[in-house]
Amino acid sequence: MRNLLFVYLLLISLFVLYVYHYQTNELTKQEWSENEIQGNMDETYVMVTFQVGIDYWKRALKGFEDAAGALNVSVEYRGARQYDVNEEITVLEQVIAKNPAGIAVSTMDPDALRTVIDKAIDAGIPVVMFDADAPESKAYAFLGTNNYHAGVEAAHKMASLVNEKGKVGVITQPNQLNHQERTQGFQDTIFMEYPDMEVSSIQDGRGNQLQSKLVAQDMISEFPDLVGVFATEANGGVGVGQASINNNLEESLKIISFDTDKGTLDMIQDGVISATLAQGTWEMGYWSLQFLFHLQHKIVEQEDAETPLPRYVDTGVTIVTKKNVDSYYPQ
Amino acid sequence: MRNLLFVYLLLISLFVLYVYHYQTNELTKQEWSENEIQGNMDETYVMVTFQVGIDYWKRALKGFEDAAGALNVSVEYRGARQYDVNEEITVLEQVIAKNPAGIAVSTMDPDALRTVIDKAIDAGIPVVMFDADAPESKAYAFLGTNNYHAGVEAAHKMASLVNEKGKVGVITQPNQLNHQERTQGFQDTIFMEYPDMEVSSIQDGRGNQLQSKLVAQDMISEFPDLVGVFATEANGGVGVGQASINNNLEESLKIISFDTDKGTLDMIQDGVISATLAQGTWEMGYWSLQFLFHLQHKIVEQEDAETPLPRYVDTGVTIVTKKNVDSYYPQ
Repeated sequence: MRNLLFVYLLLISLFVLYVYHYQTNELTKQEWSENEIQGNMDETYVMVTFQVGIDYWKRALKGFEDAAGALNVSVEYRGARQYDVNEEITVLEQVIAKNPAGIAVSTMDPDALRTVIDKAIDAGIPVVMFDADAPESKAYAFLGTNNYHAGVEAAHKMASLVNEKGKVGVITQPNQLNHQERTQGFQDTIFMEYPDMEVSSIQDGRGNQLQSKLVAQDMISEFPDLVGVFATEANGGVGVGQASINNNLEESLKIISFDTDKGTLDMIQDGVISATLAQGTWEMGYWSLQFLFHLQHKIVEQEDAETPLPRYVDTGVTIVTKKNVDSYYPQ
Repeated sequence: MRNLLFVYLLLISLFVLYVYHYQTNELTKQEWSENEIQGNMDETYVMVTFQVGIDYWKRALKGFEDAAGALNVSVEYRGARQYDVNEEITVLEQVIAKNPAGIAVSTMDPDALRTVIDKAIDAGIPVVMFDADAPESKAYAFLGTNNYHAGVEAAHKMASLVNEKGKVGVITQPNQLNHQERTQGFQDTIFMEYPDMEVSSIQDGRGNQLQSKLVAQDMISEFPDLVGVFATEANGGVGVGQASINNNLEESLKIISFDTDKGTLDMIQDGVISATLAQGTWEMGYWSLQFLFHLQHKIVEQEDAETPLPRYVDTGVTIVTKKNVDSYYPQ
């Protein structure tokens, strides 16, 4: 009987202790909840692009998903299968109809998409643009590469590769704004900061390998003392690489390319392309979701209701060389 | 005895239930912890500026504190009392010695501060710049106003105030880069987009009210048909406002100013100044802390170890008029 009473008392004490502990724990959790940045899994944020499934979007989507994991919300990825603006508009209409917590859009045609982007905003759905902006739309922010600045970075890297001396060329797409900006940043920097260098030739590679190879071949013939070529997009870079191989110039001709598709990475590993500029696509995705979350949860300055977010984020470029190329292959 | 046994069993069941409940709860918390973006109060992030205590920094500090509240970390605000670069260097040295979780710095002299900023980075302390950059330093990011773009915004607002017609002037500080950029953005936009407008005069207001009032007076005398003036800083705006009052031009002369100090806001309320551009100082502070937190907790893409953050964030400007001026007075 006395033993039983002892057990009884022990149990009561333990019980009281647990209740106390549990209550304290509850309290801590309570305090915590007010402060935390935490959503719930019912909130769905959608990424919309054109040309769904190409490698280029994978890192952006990874960043989007990583932020969703950190904030405890859900994501979906939707988009046009083709490079087709009408398909992208249809997809965006369908996404809006589901009233998601936010949409991150990359547009192939800012004017064509403007109306449907504004429709989302008017319906109270937060929208940010990434990679390619729709500046006239009501989207709250744009997160992407400053292409002029990317050209500046390419020029500095080129200068260091050729010991700040000699003739260099550019292979680009002269009709596209982002490529014009990359070329301009490159050209301005060589002209202003490297007096012993010269941009001798700027040619149209039309965004395809064969044409880029042909114009690179011409460039090499016209300027036998050419020390470097900057290709403002990936197909161009591979085309220049092929021309370099055909002329046995792998040692002497320094090539800088753009983006990190497999063909480019392989040529970096083989030493044909010296460097490529990786865009901050993970950062675009990660901070797009953070921005949309902040809009949805109104974690913004009240006074700036119309412009609650930074309008523009330059996600920057990273220079990829043989040294760090391995980490850029898809895992 | 039987009763006691019953109580005994009841207590055991309750106890088991609590233990189970508590364990489940622990598990949920565990799962949660992996995902959450949450620091602890021992982590201290420091904001460092020159001219501590002027109104301009208050909103930036508020944003810094708001982000710290959301992320459950601590903040400190330190800085030079005067506009004195050596004092700022000393303060920054003292801050580094305490090994904080991160530092957000606004610099009055990028070259003078570069060494000490790099020293912090080399010691493994994350540093971002806000409001005024040190572009040659190793700081991971800069968050501030794109001044050229602010000038563009001012031009559009001016055009709409004067019905896209007439002569306008600019009062600025021609020797400072940020003011040159504001002027250039304004001038380029008027020139390219408003054929019936003209920037007739650009004068040096030296950043003080009296001088700005004098040159505005001269401008009004020289161009009696002047319809607007853009002042690229706050003292200039108030000076132009005084000249406008002296000439009874409050109705006809449209003035756009910069920043939101009390003198400017009062003149907006009185209808002397039509609009002013508020910089995103809250956003600078808020996202500076977010960035530092992400660096400290390594919530960044692994491959981009050297450039883990967007390099530049344009925190944008908001146009303040009589309509929304009230919310810009300090609460």
